[in-house]
Amino acid sequence: MTTDARTRPGDRPGGHFHDVEVIGFDADDTLWRSEDAFHAAERRFVELLDPHTPDGIDLGAALTATERANLSISGYGVKAFTLSMVEAAVTVSDGAVPASVIGELVEIGHAMLTEPVHLLPHVPEVLARVGATHRLVLITKGDLVHQTRKITTSGLEHHFEHVEVVLEKDAATYDRIVRHVGVTAGRFCMVGNSVRSDILPVLALGGHGVHVPYHLTWEHERVEHHDEDFVELTSLADLPTLFAPR
Amino acid sequence: MTTDARTRPGDRPGGHFHDVEVIGFDADDTLWRSEDAFHAAERRFVELLDPHTPDGIDLGAALTATERANLSISGYGVKAFTLSMVEAAVTVSDGAVPASVIGELVEIGHAMLTEPVHLLPHVPEVLARVGATHRLVLITKGDLVHQTRKITTSGLEHHFEHVEVVLEKDAATYDRIVRHVGVTAGRFCMVGNSVRSDILPVLALGGHGVHVPYHLTWEHERVEHHDEDFVELTSLADLPTLFAPR
Repeated sequence: MTTDARTRPGDRPGGHFHDVEVIGFDADDTLWRSEDAFHAAERRFVELLDPHTPDGIDLGAALTATERANLSISGYGVKAFTLSMVEAAVTVSDGAVPASVIGELVEIGHAMLTEPVHLLPHVPEVLARVGATHRLVLITKGDLVHQTRKITTSGLEHHFEHVEVVLEKDAATYDRIVRHVGVTAGRFCMVGNSVRSDILPVLALGGHGVHVPYHLTWEHERVEHHDEDFVELTSLADLPTLFAPR
Repeated sequence: MTTDARTRPGDRPGGHFHDVEVIGFDADDTLWRSEDAFHAAERRFVELLDPHTPDGIDLGAALTATERANLSISGYGVKAFTLSMVEAAVTVSDGAVPASVIGELVEIGHAMLTEPVHLLPHVPEVLARVGATHRLVLITKGDLVHQTRKITTSGLEHHFEHVEVVLEKDAATYDRIVRHVGVTAGRFCMVGNSVRSDILPVLALGGHGVHVPYHLTWEHERVEHHDEDFVELTSLADLPTLFAPR
């Protein structure tokens, strides 16, 4: 195996992974950039609202708090985020934000929904290599219309035998998907940048996980402590060596 | 058959319908009310914006035009609609709308996303009756988090062996779903309030359709002319007679 793969005890690549038939891929920040756009939007939100709010208000924290409060109602994705920006703008300015700023916030959301997909390095060749020996599925959380647009414009869709946009990536969701593709969890491996969403629920089912961290992690996805064992790669480029026929 | 069922030539209930194994149900305005809330929100939008716009502007038409322009980017559903209300408010007021009105528009969206499901008459007993002899699936278009919330809080989920929230109800979508449930289109019948989304694409595949109109139809779903033959019921209460064993 590659020296870039940091292995943890109990999950040796080439150990379990030879049983894997189906590989699931996360999309946002695993196959293409996503979190960068949210960070940029948040910085712009702070710039736009700063002249209309009292000194000393932490505008980023106010936006995050609004997002978090709306999560169970609005879910993940750009439309929910844009509505949270609009709501937070009204609240933090105590109703003083001009309509022109509101218009700019809506425009930021539109731009995020329509900007072209920026693939992460090595993605097409990695999918082609592991797709030659394994069945691939794409499992992504978020907004149905936006995720579908990204999938269909990414040029990657043909690698996947099945694509699912899901509401929440929990064990029940993964259980449903492995049944749908007709394998046991032990023959399924999920690859993604979020330990919370891509790795832990799959391990809980008896499946496998490969964590490929992205340099930005949304606060909601952070997991501080976990005892589970899984493989962590510094680059997706190293994935094919884990699944190469021995 | 019931006298409430208006039959069209070529599709006699008790004729084809004895081959049907799986019945698909639309949700919004077929099982529960939906369009009423959008109409009420539109009326409130007009009231709220009227003091901030020049005389003679058709505010309802402006909102509809904004919604329509955003459809391919934002899709269907309450979050997309709320963002369109905010955008239209900024535009029609030429930037003069106060933040308090923006806050009210966001609040209308929140209320729509969280209000309890209002089932249409006869729904639970109709599902129980046809569910005793047929496999039922729920196929609904719209926002993933909102539709999922409505399904899980409706008390109806246990009637359905499969639930799909889809981006667009076209022939490709229905083809995928009938394959997934393991029947040919000829053994599938879709029940819904939209001729465009629930009936015509299923007939195109060789399946069956039962149209149950709702008193409100979203402009986008209207079909002025069609040559297809399908059954139309004035009330969902009459559905079981179409599928009763002979």
